[in-house]
Amino acid sequence: MSRFLFCALLGACALARADTPGKAPTMADVIAASKPSDWHALDPQNTLYLELASGRVVMEMAPAFAPRHVANIKTLAHEKYFDGLAILRSQDNYVVQWGDPDSDDAAKKRSVGSAQEKLKAEFTIPASKELPFTLLPDRDGYAPQTGFSADFPAARDPKARTTWLTHCYGSIGVGRDVDVDSGGGTELYVVIGASPRWLDRNITVVGRVVQGMELLSTLPRGTGALGFYEKPEQHVPIESIRLAADVPEKERTSLEVLRTDTPTFAALVESRRNRHDEWYKVPAGYIDVCSVPIPVRAIGAK
Amino acid sequence: MSRFLFCALLGACALARADTPGKAPTMADVIAASKPSDWHALDPQNTLYLELASGRVVMEMAPAFAPRHVANIKTLAHEKYFDGLAILRSQDNYVVQWGDPDSDDAAKKRSVGSAQEKLKAEFTIPASKELPFTLLPDRDGYAPQTGFSADFPAARDPKARTTWLTHCYGSIGVGRDVDVDSGGGTELYVVIGASPRWLDRNITVVGRVVQGMELLSTLPRGTGALGFYEKPEQHVPIESIRLAADVPEKERTSLEVLRTDTPTFAALVESRRNRHDEWYKVPAGYIDVCSVPIPVRAIGAK
Repeated sequence: MSRFLFCALLGACALARADTPGKAPTMADVIAASKPSDWHALDPQNTLYLELASGRVVMEMAPAFAPRHVANIKTLAHEKYFDGLAILRSQDNYVVQWGDPDSDDAAKKRSVGSAQEKLKAEFTIPASKELPFTLLPDRDGYAPQTGFSADFPAARDPKARTTWLTHCYGSIGVGRDVDVDSGGGTELYVVIGASPRWLDRNITVVGRVVQGMELLSTLPRGTGALGFYEKPEQHVPIESIRLAADVPEKERTSLEVLRTDTPTFAALVESRRNRHDEWYKVPAGYIDVCSVPIPVRAIGAK
Repeated sequence: MSRFLFCALLGACALARADTPGKAPTMADVIAASKPSDWHALDPQNTLYLELASGRVVMEMAPAFAPRHVANIKTLAHEKYFDGLAILRSQDNYVVQWGDPDSDDAAKKRSVGSAQEKLKAEFTIPASKELPFTLLPDRDGYAPQTGFSADFPAARDPKARTTWLTHCYGSIGVGRDVDVDSGGGTELYVVIGASPRWLDRNITVVGRVVQGMELLSTLPRGTGALGFYEKPEQHVPIESIRLAADVPEKERTSLEVLRTDTPTFAALVESRRNRHDEWYKVPAGYIDVCSVPIPVRAIGAK
């Protein structure tokens, strides 16, 4: 087997040659050299657990970008709205989506309890000094500027003074109808394919999956239009969605995420713009915002 | 359910409003208006069938870009080299890869028969008038120019006068070691995640999957480093890989691919640069080479 290909692709080989004098660091070198302060622990008040029969999907919410929707989704989770609903759609190279299978039937539809059914859209927010933005050095096609904010991939329009979360692999968004204010968080989708950046600024993004993506990305694809499952028995049951803070501490998944506003992260970006292990012959000299990994690890891992 | 979201995302709603005077066409409109000459039928001499227990994956080869590797892979398929080998790796948001599980064991390793084990790399080819290139209007980050050639997503460097296939969802490449000339086609990988464009010009791309991607993208992820399956019983057996021309005609999958060098395709690109159905509020004004669908349909479909 071409093992060099395999390890070189991830930069994992690089561990073997970390600290070689004069060599530019790989991503593995950068992570190995990171300090505890380079990471942020997931906040239990902003972390949701999607529990499936196959395991737990950990989702980090982005209240700075979608305060109304995140608060509403937390209320829905707290009141157990999602428990027993299902993943209804799995479209190859696009999204999985969950919600209430009976949402079109007024008689059977589940009540949203004290949450809201619909909210005013949060497609973009005003750019502000209170929300730092770490610029990527490279030009993007879909937005005037891209980078990272609150440790999420993001974009910015300096003229319009707006900023927003970009649609990358693992991004979580809020389904809506044609009316921009018709979503509320009862239906959520997760990107499982190539970055659908054309959705940016057209839909509210509320966070990203930080662990368990493979439980969503490997679901059988629906054979109906747009990847809908055609038969109710194909629906993938949601055991529950819980706010981490509502879960006993010992049952939580303790993770930390690499901060994106540090010299360490800048070094990681550079290690991906130009790969320095011996496998690569032509460094790209470029990286797009969705191709920069934002590493996640168990707290205490080294 | 937010059905408008669902159909609007794909442009499928647009069928309802096709031919509305004064409205820019959606992708569905463009395809509906296409002529038979806008499509090319798959050439059985350049089509491979990967047969799994779950079904058939149809792969279109790109001999214009990798003549030596495609010829070698065809020889391997013709001599049944791949039959009984296995998918060994499935790495989330990256690639699946297959080959000989015993390739590191000289005693058990399978013979390549009259094929070659290693070939000179075909990372790029000289740009030439004989191989037309349809430029995308938008600027790309990873390459001086991007577009389509031989109905594959491609890139070009006018200064170096080279052109190459880009790594997009469904792209098929040739595993290699650190030595650029160490691949031959016995190990192939398929992209199942966000476009890993940094691999461009570093590895030989031989074609793309045109049907059956979901059979690869939904495979359980390997839990070993880089997505390798850790136990032999997790390997996904390959029943066979056959050249379509070696398969009886009535057992072939008859598909046609939209040509990329036509006014129809230019209209399709524009329909994706700026979505015109009522769901979209902010048209992107941009499309990257890997986000332009190259439609495939059964011959005779309308």
